[in-house]
Amino acid sequence: MSVATYTIAGNGVRNFYSSSSSYIRRHNFPIIIPNIRSLSFPFNNSYVTAAVSSSSSTTSVSDSIGNSSNFTWDDVFQVSQSRSDLDGFFQKISLCNRGSEKRSDFIPFVIEDQIVGYVHIGFADQLSKFKDVFTITKDNTYGSQSGHVTLQSALKTPESRTEALGNVVKCLGEEVFPGIRNELYPVTSSYGGSVYFSLERAAAPYFGIKAYGIHMSGYVEKDGEKYLWIGKRSETKATYPGMLDHLVAGGLPHGMSCAENVVKECEEEAGIPRPISSRAIPVGVVSYMDIDGYRFKRDVLFCYDLKLPESFIPHNQDGEVGSFKLLPVTLVRDVIRNTEFFKANCNLVIIDFLYRHGYIKPEDDGYLKLLQSLRSGDCS
Amino acid sequence: MSVATYTIAGNGVRNFYSSSSSYIRRHNFPIIIPNIRSLSFPFNNSYVTAAVSSSSSTTSVSDSIGNSSNFTWDDVFQVSQSRSDLDGFFQKISLCNRGSEKRSDFIPFVIEDQIVGYVHIGFADQLSKFKDVFTITKDNTYGSQSGHVTLQSALKTPESRTEALGNVVKCLGEEVFPGIRNELYPVTSSYGGSVYFSLERAAAPYFGIKAYGIHMSGYVEKDGEKYLWIGKRSETKATYPGMLDHLVAGGLPHGMSCAENVVKECEEEAGIPRPISSRAIPVGVVSYMDIDGYRFKRDVLFCYDLKLPESFIPHNQDGEVGSFKLLPVTLVRDVIRNTEFFKANCNLVIIDFLYRHGYIKPEDDGYLKLLQSLRSGDCS
Repeated sequence: MSVATYTIAGNGVRNFYSSSSSYIRRHNFPIIIPNIRSLSFPFNNSYVTAAVSSSSSTTSVSDSIGNSSNFTWDDVFQVSQSRSDLDGFFQKISLCNRGSEKRSDFIPFVIEDQIVGYVHIGFADQLSKFKDVFTITKDNTYGSQSGHVTLQSALKTPESRTEALGNVVKCLGEEVFPGIRNELYPVTSSYGGSVYFSLERAAAPYFGIKAYGIHMSGYVEKDGEKYLWIGKRSETKATYPGMLDHLVAGGLPHGMSCAENVVKECEEEAGIPRPISSRAIPVGVVSYMDIDGYRFKRDVLFCYDLKLPESFIPHNQDGEVGSFKLLPVTLVRDVIRNTEFFKANCNLVIIDFLYRHGYIKPEDDGYLKLLQSLRSGDCS
Repeated sequence: MSVATYTIAGNGVRNFYSSSSSYIRRHNFPIIIPNIRSLSFPFNNSYVTAAVSSSSSTTSVSDSIGNSSNFTWDDVFQVSQSRSDLDGFFQKISLCNRGSEKRSDFIPFVIEDQIVGYVHIGFADQLSKFKDVFTITKDNTYGSQSGHVTLQSALKTPESRTEALGNVVKCLGEEVFPGIRNELYPVTSSYGGSVYFSLERAAAPYFGIKAYGIHMSGYVEKDGEKYLWIGKRSETKATYPGMLDHLVAGGLPHGMSCAENVVKECEEEAGIPRPISSRAIPVGVVSYMDIDGYRFKRDVLFCYDLKLPESFIPHNQDGEVGSFKLLPVTLVRDVIRNTEFFKANCNLVIIDFLYRHGYIKPEDDGYLKLLQSLRSGDCS
């Protein structure tokens, strides 16, 4: 068992202490909920004690994709408000929008005269070996001096393209596309537009495909204070193991609406039944463009808020989350500002939450610039 | 007394009927609140009857600035959901962003090497007669082939500039700047930046000055349904008389923070005392750029939400509002979509509210484009 005591002093300054037998917090509200259903949720107790199994409070991780995470929940609780400016938030925006100076290393990927993605010049060389699938044209038709990539004209139907690209992904394999998960993403030029074919999710960034996802902030309100349910990703996840995450998030698979996807992911990731999850409301969008080697991520995340009953305790069903904790929004804000504990794109969604719920104010220097930067990607 | 019956059928379709003695609504919640403090607010009655004085339900207006308004509250209540797409919202965005094709008719207004505004070439001609105040330079230093306007170098201090421009405004008077209100706006290149001088509010659009304001959505939640308090502007207001408006809105005067301004305007416009108004939360920003003749409006509106107690009834203190009504958000949505009853920029703030509260969904065609268009102006 690991332990921390969390107090909020009268002046609003948070202090954290660690011990070794129980979590105690002097704030009429538990910030920590163990991953066991039987735990009571004593909102009205002045002091709350809750056991946390050691498996959920200790992590030691080397990751395959994403930042290395080597922190525990205790480290999260010990984050204090060491800064009050917005610089820490701007840094998180930058984390999701790397490599803009390398934009010209990528050439358009064109289907039916529409730009559906961007491919690195070096990767285009690799693709050019698949002569029955790709054509590299060296002209400036689509705004790049280095030409563009398109598919062989024989690949006229979505099905034939999906099959041909699927074979390329299989052929190049895990070495080129780590984390292949046999999940297809629709390839479009804009949200709701024609789907030209479908592509393995792990390969999408190498083709600079726009990817859409849903991210849901699950929160609880008590006496005018708001608390966010935060997950810590499983240590065995291929991507970003052990890092902090939303209560519920997922890519938008081909043929599924955002609303359906929220309900599905709520069930799988947090055990939230449909009667509750269907109350989740769409609240807007964040976007980013991230260049990392041959990968060009152009992601648009549809944000949802779900106000949860005080008594609800999430339970991961698919093994993707190690544990959940309920944290004061003010602590989540400070964790984002002062650490890199969150999976990078979660930062954007939570900063958006902080804006919409009044935790970032017009009086904060950089208010407008930070707000704008939440949609740094092509939001279409 | 004027009268309407408002029913919500089981299928969610709203029907409106007019009669001549009382307002009745079959929905366990009153949609109409007369402007009299003594009225009870019977949330738990199945049928609610509320008298409305004729003065607040009948308008007949010819306006000096803004669209002509010749509608009554009854007309508002009779709006039905005749369309479900986003086209009506896009039209309201366009209403606030007119004349972009005339952008090149304006030249930069430059102070201390910073572009603080834009002036129409024709208006610059008028200004050139004030030789001890303005200099027109015919070069391309600031991106316009037609040159730029600046102040005479002798006007080095904010005070001297404010005085000189104040004299110009006085000299040109109401004929050039209708609606002079002796309210000064700070002249900056961006929010929170240096204030180069202050300028009469009515003159600000003629100099293309960035103007900042606060708009607050006051809402009530009952049984999971949300209702917005909506004002109908006084018939005697110089601008947009008789049109629908937010519960509280106002320009941001020189030297006042957004938070202070919200509290001030809450008191003046709706009689909301500080203990309630201080709970208003900042939730983001909308912006627009509107060219109309010599006027170039570049406005940024800081949006606030205030969840009001069910028992609260607003009372205008400054004579700027004729009456307030509490309307279901779904009705407000339909009024915006189907009419031009709202003062133009209020539409943007309420559309933003509709996004943040889940009334516009990713499944709606145009979701991302409309969301982006809420910040069509220079949001800095």
